[in-house]
Amino acid sequence: MADFDIQACAKRLEPWIIKTPLVEVEALSQRTGKKVYLKLESLQRTGAFKFRGAMNYMLSLGKAEAERGVITASSGNHGLGMSLGGKLRGIKCTVVMPVSAPLTKQERAKGYGATLVLHGNDYDEAQQYAQKLAEEHGYTYVPSFNHRAIIEGQGTIFNEIVKELPQVDMVVAPVGGGGMLAGLLIAREQSGMEVEIVGVEPTGAASMQASLAAGRQTTLPTMQTIADGVAVRTPGSLNFEIISRFNPPMWQVSDEGILAVQKLLLQESKLIVETAGAVSVAGLLAANLPAEIETVVCVISGANLDLANLAKLI
Amino acid sequence: MADFDIQACAKRLEPWIIKTPLVEVEALSQRTGKKVYLKLESLQRTGAFKFRGAMNYMLSLGKAEAERGVITASSGNHGLGMSLGGKLRGIKCTVVMPVSAPLTKQERAKGYGATLVLHGNDYDEAQQYAQKLAEEHGYTYVPSFNHRAIIEGQGTIFNEIVKELPQVDMVVAPVGGGGMLAGLLIAREQSGMEVEIVGVEPTGAASMQASLAAGRQTTLPTMQTIADGVAVRTPGSLNFEIISRFNPPMWQVSDEGILAVQKLLLQESKLIVETAGAVSVAGLLAANLPAEIETVVCVISGANLDLANLAKLI
Repeated sequence: MADFDIQACAKRLEPWIIKTPLVEVEALSQRTGKKVYLKLESLQRTGAFKFRGAMNYMLSLGKAEAERGVITASSGNHGLGMSLGGKLRGIKCTVVMPVSAPLTKQERAKGYGATLVLHGNDYDEAQQYAQKLAEEHGYTYVPSFNHRAIIEGQGTIFNEIVKELPQVDMVVAPVGGGGMLAGLLIAREQSGMEVEIVGVEPTGAASMQASLAAGRQTTLPTMQTIADGVAVRTPGSLNFEIISRFNPPMWQVSDEGILAVQKLLLQESKLIVETAGAVSVAGLLAANLPAEIETVVCVISGANLDLANLAKLI
Repeated sequence: MADFDIQACAKRLEPWIIKTPLVEVEALSQRTGKKVYLKLESLQRTGAFKFRGAMNYMLSLGKAEAERGVITASSGNHGLGMSLGGKLRGIKCTVVMPVSAPLTKQERAKGYGATLVLHGNDYDEAQQYAQKLAEEHGYTYVPSFNHRAIIEGQGTIFNEIVKELPQVDMVVAPVGGGGMLAGLLIAREQSGMEVEIVGVEPTGAASMQASLAAGRQTTLPTMQTIADGVAVRTPGSLNFEIISRFNPPMWQVSDEGILAVQKLLLQESKLIVETAGAVSVAGLLAANLPAEIETVVCVISGANLDLANLAKLI
């Protein structure tokens, strides 16, 4: 992957992002008999890893594009990442959300200075409208995972992990569109290290595994998962291309497993993670790992859950 | 403080403790105009910094004492720290709690393998009984803050902070019996670094400040605070001696300020902290710091709050 340079990206991002904590969680080490660490991207700026890719995108924009501004469709972590990235770089950022988007997410995007447009009844309609606005106004449309700069930014997670914990044997990552997993795989290749990298999808939204099985980018006919952050019907084409080349082990987890991990982390370790954030740990707890895997890092994607949903976990 | 060696203690503790995360929290940096980091001892083993001192105590026990076992009176973080320390070292540990101690805390101490004794209607009665049992059985009675090994263990927090963030200008610490503050002050002296260290007490339990004002260890006639982790009527004598020698700036915070910080950290940063854990941040938010203080670390003592209390914050 010659056009990726995760090391240079990590250096470029360093003044902007939080080097998030990597912390051993006893409750998980006990249950698995491994040393289990969590990479807490839940403590990243905007509360999710997506800020890495979004900020890298903002830093890669040419002057003319930056002056015209960017647009994206997202009521989730990518939208927040772009909003903050725009604020930090002084780049006008428009975020299109479906009219049903939660008020708290609307407020947070506006709080980061983004222009908020409410349009359409679902994500697809919002996305189409965002692309229409991009054409009309000359904005650059920014995809949420299917882009070199986004993948590169997410890959910097790997560099932070191995710098702090060089003895790591395995990194477990949640997979939605495949931005984080593709980035981790490239970063590992560029590091020359031998670390197993595993991707985990909810059983009801395993579009990357469907694509890998079919040998081409595949759209799920239906999708059913509580993990909205990784609920992606069609994985990114670039992401698929990268992941299929490396062909990493892929696991699936149930919604019950995800909820159980959210509860476990809250009650035993006082950690708040979003549903997508629990996916990697749910995968680990369901896995049967060989003895030679001693030290495992699960990436926690974020902490952006509604407080009402938090209350349900107590 | 010739009989303290924080550097050696940090090395001794390293295989046993978690090097807890030091993470910048945007919501606090924005509010103060400083770079604000939290030292998350809430992610320490047992969920609180107290494990450092307790483990250091366990490691300092002679063979004969270790064989006879230890006893302490505590339904809080110190009791959990001693319980886990006993388990890890194979030392019999008895924890005396008043009969009113919350069931969850009883279960957690037993879960770490401690022998649980329920006796007395309040902490004082439990403590007297623990000392009686110590004499009868030859157990070593372990105080929760007034001891060289305990203070030394807590002081290792300072070493971790300055190693990771050498540019830190100020460290803000909660004060109960004074173990953490005394340890930090000694660690700073031994490091030779110029870092301001500030202690914070709840206004309704400011026994260290009362003692400093009186020039001698002083018992508060009454005490009123929601921050049970720092609700101490009489500070430790050794702790007082050390703190009065260094005479650091001391702040006070209200229960309202503590609750507001608990809510802020939960809602904006998805961080769970106990009431005592919010004390340092509450102090910072109420302070008016000079411009030359640019980088501040607040120590979060722990995350051991009942989930029922967490629900109230949502």
